[in-house]
Amino acid sequence: MANIAKKVSWSGRGDDRGERTPLLNGDEEVKNNRQVPDTLDYDNSENQLFLEEERRMSHMGFRCLEIRRWVICGLIGFLTGLIACMIDIAVEKLAGYKYFAVKQNIEKYTELGGLSISLILWAVLNSAFVMFGAIAVAFVEPIAAGSGIPQIKCFLNGVKIPRVVRLKTLVIKVFGVICSVAGGLAVGKEGPMIHSGAVMAAGVSQGRSTSLKKDFKIFEYFRRDTEKRDFVSAGAAAGVSAAFGAPVGGVLFSLEEGASFWNQLLTWRIFFASMVSTFTLNFFLSIYHGKPGELSSPGLINFGRFDSDCECSVMYVVQKQHTLIVLSHRMRLQHWLLRFSHAVLCLRYIHRPCLQVMEAMLVAAVTATVSFAMIYFSNDCQPLGQDKAEEYPLQLFCADGEYNSMATAFFNTPERSVRSLFHNPPGTYNPVTLGVFTLAYFFLAVWTYGLTVSAGVFIPSLLIGAAWGRLFGILLSFIIWADPGKYALIGAAAQLGGIVRMTLSLTVIMIEATGNVTYGFPIMLVLMTAKIVGDYFIEGLYDIHIKLQSVPFLHWDAPPTSHWLTAREVMSSPVTCFNRVEKVGRIVDVLSNTSTIHNGFPVVAHTRKICGLILRSQLIVLLKHKVFVERASSRLSQRKLQLKDFRDAYPRFPPIQSIHVSQDERECMMDLTEFMNPTPYTVPQETSLPRVFKLFRALGLRHLVVVDNENRVVGLVTRKDLARYHVGKDGLEELHLAQT
Amino acid sequence: MANIAKKVSWSGRGDDRGERTPLLNGDEEVKNNRQVPDTLDYDNSENQLFLEEERRMSHMGFRCLEIRRWVICGLIGFLTGLIACMIDIAVEKLAGYKYFAVKQNIEKYTELGGLSISLILWAVLNSAFVMFGAIAVAFVEPIAAGSGIPQIKCFLNGVKIPRVVRLKTLVIKVFGVICSVAGGLAVGKEGPMIHSGAVMAAGVSQGRSTSLKKDFKIFEYFRRDTEKRDFVSAGAAAGVSAAFGAPVGGVLFSLEEGASFWNQLLTWRIFFASMVSTFTLNFFLSIYHGKPGELSSPGLINFGRFDSDCECSVMYVVQKQHTLIVLSHRMRLQHWLLRFSHAVLCLRYIHRPCLQVMEAMLVAAVTATVSFAMIYFSNDCQPLGQDKAEEYPLQLFCADGEYNSMATAFFNTPERSVRSLFHNPPGTYNPVTLGVFTLAYFFLAVWTYGLTVSAGVFIPSLLIGAAWGRLFGILLSFIIWADPGKYALIGAAAQLGGIVRMTLSLTVIMIEATGNVTYGFPIMLVLMTAKIVGDYFIEGLYDIHIKLQSVPFLHWDAPPTSHWLTAREVMSSPVTCFNRVEKVGRIVDVLSNTSTIHNGFPVVAHTRKICGLILRSQLIVLLKHKVFVERASSRLSQRKLQLKDFRDAYPRFPPIQSIHVSQDERECMMDLTEFMNPTPYTVPQETSLPRVFKLFRALGLRHLVVVDNENRVVGLVTRKDLARYHVGKDGLEELHLAQT
Repeated sequence: MANIAKKVSWSGRGDDRGERTPLLNGDEEVKNNRQVPDTLDYDNSENQLFLEEERRMSHMGFRCLEIRRWVICGLIGFLTGLIACMIDIAVEKLAGYKYFAVKQNIEKYTELGGLSISLILWAVLNSAFVMFGAIAVAFVEPIAAGSGIPQIKCFLNGVKIPRVVRLKTLVIKVFGVICSVAGGLAVGKEGPMIHSGAVMAAGVSQGRSTSLKKDFKIFEYFRRDTEKRDFVSAGAAAGVSAAFGAPVGGVLFSLEEGASFWNQLLTWRIFFASMVSTFTLNFFLSIYHGKPGELSSPGLINFGRFDSDCECSVMYVVQKQHTLIVLSHRMRLQHWLLRFSHAVLCLRYIHRPCLQVMEAMLVAAVTATVSFAMIYFSNDCQPLGQDKAEEYPLQLFCADGEYNSMATAFFNTPERSVRSLFHNPPGTYNPVTLGVFTLAYFFLAVWTYGLTVSAGVFIPSLLIGAAWGRLFGILLSFIIWADPGKYALIGAAAQLGGIVRMTLSLTVIMIEATGNVTYGFPIMLVLMTAKIVGDYFIEGLYDIHIKLQSVPFLHWDAPPTSHWLTAREVMSSPVTCFNRVEKVGRIVDVLSNTSTIHNGFPVVAHTRKICGLILRSQLIVLLKHKVFVERASSRLSQRKLQLKDFRDAYPRFPPIQSIHVSQDERECMMDLTEFMNPTPYTVPQETSLPRVFKLFRALGLRHLVVVDNENRVVGLVTRKDLARYHVGKDGLEELHLAQT
Repeated sequence: MANIAKKVSWSGRGDDRGERTPLLNGDEEVKNNRQVPDTLDYDNSENQLFLEEERRMSHMGFRCLEIRRWVICGLIGFLTGLIACMIDIAVEKLAGYKYFAVKQNIEKYTELGGLSISLILWAVLNSAFVMFGAIAVAFVEPIAAGSGIPQIKCFLNGVKIPRVVRLKTLVIKVFGVICSVAGGLAVGKEGPMIHSGAVMAAGVSQGRSTSLKKDFKIFEYFRRDTEKRDFVSAGAAAGVSAAFGAPVGGVLFSLEEGASFWNQLLTWRIFFASMVSTFTLNFFLSIYHGKPGELSSPGLINFGRFDSDCECSVMYVVQKQHTLIVLSHRMRLQHWLLRFSHAVLCLRYIHRPCLQVMEAMLVAAVTATVSFAMIYFSNDCQPLGQDKAEEYPLQLFCADGEYNSMATAFFNTPERSVRSLFHNPPGTYNPVTLGVFTLAYFFLAVWTYGLTVSAGVFIPSLLIGAAWGRLFGILLSFIIWADPGKYALIGAAAQLGGIVRMTLSLTVIMIEATGNVTYGFPIMLVLMTAKIVGDYFIEGLYDIHIKLQSVPFLHWDAPPTSHWLTAREVMSSPVTCFNRVEKVGRIVDVLSNTSTIHNGFPVVAHTRKICGLILRSQLIVLLKHKVFVERASSRLSQRKLQLKDFRDAYPRFPPIQSIHVSQDERECMMDLTEFMNPTPYTVPQETSLPRVFKLFRALGLRHLVVVDNENRVVGLVTRKDLARYHVGKDGLEELHLAQT
């Protein structure tokens, strides 16, 4: 869990090097002087420009927009599917070469003696792969480290981690994940797919790439937070769908993580993207495997077919009781371990990219060594079957016609190992082998999680869970009849659920991945238990991640005991307001003030009566185009400022420091009437926190103006103000969040 | 589509008899003088009483509430599953006896001659069953007619059709559906399950039954619209889940139809209810079938196992092109027919219950006659196989060892027929037989739909679709190889989708019912096409139903071209306001005014400054308890009015006419401060309609106060004001809605 320790790794590359980037370096990354995450605005600013545009648009125009949205979703699904396909094929090929070379080598030296050469070959190959991946991540785009799921969760929630949906991030992510999986680390390629899908969506929907400096001049209408968020939801769903072959699960993941407002048409579009994505992956993989038209690999991981026999029955539920009891002990143990690793690793800050790369290489070498040792010292031989999942059987010291059972677990891609654990017939694994494997793999996974490589946590969790689930099944089968494969599935679900704490979406993903609806009930029971037991000890992995970032993440509901808090207590006050017609000098001063950075400013008439709300980004565009009252006459020949100018600047508005305002211009006046949102949502001061929270969450607001009974501005509630309140063990607690 | 014609059948029993119920009859049904549907309030009235209660509650208290919610959801699922089980067993038994008797009779008279006696027996048996069902529905509870899905859609949307979630309705519904399905009508038992689940939920969650005059004094906290709606969502989901064995589809159905605000915990609870429901049904049915523990019937309808072979492949998608083209022609034809039937049946109002019963019996007899004629005149004999679905094979005039193929379609419960169409091997059906069957069944289903019986439209749609899909598959197989069973599935999905126009939820339901994820993509494509083509011609069946009711149903988004409308144009004005301390006489007069019935009244301070919002129901409770300022001193000994008093009166608040206010009391004053919602949501007059709409929809509001820039009340936006705007062929249109 080393990544947890690297609290600041999201906020900017500078921090990863352990040095503080100077505030005014003109680097566009350091937007608005801030290293902290920005928030997104899901409430349209319905200013005059916007309303004029909407009113000009005909019924037909809206229909065209709708068609364009569908086309974009189709594209997102298609491209996400392609990326998944590419990753899968690349990993298959590279891992295939690697295992082939090592296998040859082992076979050569088994009889000759000198297996240490094989070990070195394996370790070197692993390290080499991982090195490339780690270099790309550490030196080029640190944000591409990890699975990217917490970042996407934040994005959908309304917190924008810088550079998270850029093309460069995508390229590094894909390259990184190929390297780390091929390098044999205890990681999966599923989590990164979700991030990849989201980046793809953010790129395609905007019709341009700032990294490539290419603007296709299409889809300009969609250049605002609301629309972009919708597409990113679709992208994330497409990613899940491609990763697990679970289109419905993908939709539910997006909704569970992001959507504050359920909309039928939107959901249907998201589902379309998911379907296209899994279909594309399936189609191209089936061609690649030389069986076009068979469509047998809907996802990157395939659990294989589970048949519903009497095992999935009432007896199951009875047996479940045992599982659950063991499970909760297991969870307790696991969380103790998680905490332990967390504590240990918090002490270890590795900031220098070269050290990070070396750490990753070391882990890769250690993984190879541990695996080798496990295979070497295990003398658990099994007869060689016709099992297809067993693609690289290692004979080693086993008799002819037999293979080393430990090698199925370690000498294989993790996806294959999971499938073997689910489906291999009873008796394939020796309990001791499995126990040792579970422990070793657990520690490896924990160590690996914090590395600066692109990698997901789904597969290692599934693998660990499947291993101990199967172990449990084997032990149980000494008492009553039990199919250990089924227990492997339940164990995998429990482990994954305990780590990521997703509920509905994970159940559906598991159901879709197993292709069997009848497993739904036991899986749901297990996930529910895992969540309840887990929540009692510690939060889920992603939530820990998000919390350590101290980003203003909004949960589903206000804390239950917060009814005694009102908007008056929660709001930020006093508020910096602007007049309808404001002096340029004052605007520049307020925006440049680095001690109090605000993103939204109420616009007031005399006696501070609210008459609108204007955003920092809008003011910056106005300043850039010098939309001053005094220039209006001289600008008669010039064109009027249009919505297009705001869209062109979106989403990377220049920092205020890059805009030059002369001393003369400072004396000019700016008329904000046309550009401000004339109807911001307002609440009276007495409104209770849950009511404010609901308004905020349901509408995806960024600012909520608090007024007195004369409609005068008295405060402003922001995301940060709300995210501050949190339920601890003893009731309501206040958190300290980064300054936004 | 006779029901469509009976516009007024929801609004009260009186109307069904073609007579106008007098306004002041004291009948509690005639709530607030109105026969029109009421609206629900999903915005908590956070008045002082409520806040005090919430603030008194500890962290532990909230946790207990949460546990109680889970218990209720489990109960809802369990009871819904039980009801489904009961319906299934009753129908099986009754239909079994019926078919056995008729079969015996036919076999007896086939050789003797005199099959007309068999026909009469069949017709009489059918009519008898249907008679009981129709009598119950027509005389006891007319609201139980039909599937109940439009009514539940309305409820989840926020429109309360009177008596729709009562225990009596449930009893009649269950009895009615058993009778009509056993009576051999072209109906299904799936739609009514959704209604039954919802009623169950509304009953259980309130911890009392007004019909049984029994208050268990539990779950009192949940006696308000917000909580009740959440539980009804869970009930509807449990119903879908039990009907189709589709727990995820159930959750999506609830969300698609109802939830304006997605909440993770709520969804998870709904899913729990769904899972429990299908599991309960499965468990009890497996015991009933003598195979406890096998869990093979997760739903009332079971599509049987579809295996994914090469058919579900790329070729499929290519072939789909043909299907889609045929489909769209088909849809056009079908909608022409729908319109035709609609036009014809609009002319026919049958109001008298006894006539309704006779019509239902007539249809039952005609159905039997048509079926008999089809079987009699068809000489399509097929060899008797080992097919289990073929439970009542009729030999009739076929050779020994053969059976009449038409009889599989007609001499069977519709569920079985659907399954045969999906799974019987190619060559089972003669194309001509199928064609005639499709046509005959289509007309029967259309006629049946309007009867005063409890019945669903899912199964007939599936059956018709499966029949023409299979016909299409057979015709296609003359050209290229095709499995007609797969086409039957696609046809069924298309037909059902074209009629009910559900999207995501229907796809998931179909996927879950087939138990095979790989069919998702073709099913989705077909449903999408069906929806697009269908929407071009006419709205979906449920929407037609809802529209004819002229209830203020809110769609997902404001009409796209409505940005030029502002709150000023949309709002109702002038508004009846009350002062903080208001004269009782005025309140009584306003509430009793039958020409302008309002449910919410802004409370204003001097110069009409908004300071709260009070509901009609709250005022009625206050009047009933005589909470007058003048009595405060004499009431010192009396207890203070508590939230409990409001909860006890919920949801059937007495009409104002039943409350006696003496002339002296009319001169008293009432202080509303404590009871009004002090922080109602407000918007300025310039707010655009989409913005108002979004606020309304996302928060589930019933009233939205429009204020000027001095915070003075200038108008009130209600559900009706918003539902009025609608997109027609030529852009925005205004609808005329019933006075609410």
